[in-house]
Amino acid sequence: MPELRRDPIIGRWVIITKERGKVKKDFEKIPEIDTSDGCPFCPGKENLTPPEILSFREPGTKKDEKGWWVRAIPNKFPVLRVEGTLNRRGEGMFDYMDGIGAHEVIIETPNHNADFSDLDNKQAEEVVWAYRDRILDLKKDIRFEYILVFKNHGADAGASLAHPHSQIIAMPTIPVRVKQEIEGGRNYFEYKERCVFCDIIHEETEANTRIVSENEDFICIAPFASRFPFETWILPKVHSSVFEDLPKHEVANLAMMLRDINARMNEILEKPPYNFVIHNAPCRTGKLPYYHWHIEMMPRLTKVAGFEWGTGFYINPTPPEEAAKFLRETH
Amino acid sequence: MPELRRDPIIGRWVIITKERGKVKKDFEKIPEIDTSDGCPFCPGKENLTPPEILSFREPGTKKDEKGWWVRAIPNKFPVLRVEGTLNRRGEGMFDYMDGIGAHEVIIETPNHNADFSDLDNKQAEEVVWAYRDRILDLKKDIRFEYILVFKNHGADAGASLAHPHSQIIAMPTIPVRVKQEIEGGRNYFEYKERCVFCDIIHEETEANTRIVSENEDFICIAPFASRFPFETWILPKVHSSVFEDLPKHEVANLAMMLRDINARMNEILEKPPYNFVIHNAPCRTGKLPYYHWHIEMMPRLTKVAGFEWGTGFYINPTPPEEAAKFLRETH
Repeated sequence: MPELRRDPIIGRWVIITKERGKVKKDFEKIPEIDTSDGCPFCPGKENLTPPEILSFREPGTKKDEKGWWVRAIPNKFPVLRVEGTLNRRGEGMFDYMDGIGAHEVIIETPNHNADFSDLDNKQAEEVVWAYRDRILDLKKDIRFEYILVFKNHGADAGASLAHPHSQIIAMPTIPVRVKQEIEGGRNYFEYKERCVFCDIIHEETEANTRIVSENEDFICIAPFASRFPFETWILPKVHSSVFEDLPKHEVANLAMMLRDINARMNEILEKPPYNFVIHNAPCRTGKLPYYHWHIEMMPRLTKVAGFEWGTGFYINPTPPEEAAKFLRETH
Repeated sequence: MPELRRDPIIGRWVIITKERGKVKKDFEKIPEIDTSDGCPFCPGKENLTPPEILSFREPGTKKDEKGWWVRAIPNKFPVLRVEGTLNRRGEGMFDYMDGIGAHEVIIETPNHNADFSDLDNKQAEEVVWAYRDRILDLKKDIRFEYILVFKNHGADAGASLAHPHSQIIAMPTIPVRVKQEIEGGRNYFEYKERCVFCDIIHEETEANTRIVSENEDFICIAPFASRFPFETWILPKVHSSVFEDLPKHEVANLAMMLRDINARMNEILEKPPYNFVIHNAPCRTGKLPYYHWHIEMMPRLTKVAGFEWGTGFYINPTPPEEAAKFLRETH
């Protein structure tokens, strides 16, 4: 059973999975991205994965068989487990919980070699609908405090399979970065009585130097204090703290925006590895006036990162204004 | 001039250097670690570096010539610059400062191929004395709020030169991770009237499952909520918030401890790339009863990290008890 442990100094929870590497060789580079031979996410290989939780599929086709266009499955190597109770406990000054949660994979297309930008609008929308459906279902489990939707694309970003997929982790605690954002948003709101993210959208629209792309419902910016070269954020223009509340027209426009940003990034940066994370409100807070859900896209370009994770002190060689200009002028 | 920018949501300052990469090819892997041919950190190549700031050298030898055993120089490609004023300013809701600071390199030995664990005790002590001397000198500049001593070892940890060296960055703001630690330490102190780090040392000594090594003045543990496999922390046993206050016997024992931990890590993990960071009190706070300086060592083993930096949500496949056992049983 994986274990959650709380850092006694700053209160950050860490998952100790206990089941992976022990000595040097266990940490050797993750395997090269495999070819479509034997890919467990390809149609016809459904028997290689745990039974599906959700699929959007042709009428008349059967669960765990071909005929789907989006498929959600439990992760075969989950970092958290669904079975059990949290079993919160202390040992001296240290705090533990059992590693209760869910870890799912959303296979975004049957096409092994597709990039997100290659999907048609309809298919991209279906991926967003799948995120939404899975979040709504997972929220019913009251043990979960936070549901994290993210994507590791490319081996250098931590992906172990090339077939396009995202991941969802439902967890009994809120990631420290989200906590900080919520706290920062609350402080700003107390002071200004406005959402800091709404203010950023307003300010960026006025300045018009860091906007990458926009449509009716969404804006994509290179954030003012970008930590990474070509980091971008996608924000809904109308205030909302809850991703899964997004109305139908927003689903369509978000899907289009995601395709668009992927295409721009691929063109400028030659299909870089990247991580994308949906920053959403916690499960149990309800709608918040001071938090604003958004997506953070982080291409993995620099190895120079070094000590950054250890200190939270980031050095970014590319001004976001330049990144935005490059990305904007691509199409 | 590099620029410091403050994230308007969580208040994290980021350095935008403006001078490095712009398009994909600029971010290609940093060059392979070079051989001693033409290494600017080797004796006899002193003319390839900016003039030295400090050196410990044979009597009678001249500045910027051979004869040194430890040498501190300005970084040829500094992320922050010494010249100028902070020029704090706002632009709409966004906050800037000029990238004022210092960025130095400490060359730890004339021997290009030495590992820290290969140095003799005397040489390792001299490196610690050099850290101390440079911190004390940089603290005189009242523009600086924090002085970060760190080491990137190996290309995968962000080192661009193989010759053993550490870096020092003096900056006009406190890294977010240090701020969190100080705040966490203060909260704990208010509640318990004890230093949380002192309590950790006490607790780890009792439990005796995560201790890697100890000597008269220092203890090395695999921390309870380790973020990374084989992460270790070195803490002084007697409370002190200020690294540069360390008495002479502690310098000797810290040097020994650093050599010892490097040797253990090298043996178990076959000379892994790693980052090490000295977590020290800020320059202007004086001695703090609730903060405790320490060193964090992070071998870079997992590529699986992926979205971790974006969320602060860490998954660690190696329980610290196991890491400590492996490291402890090495010698």
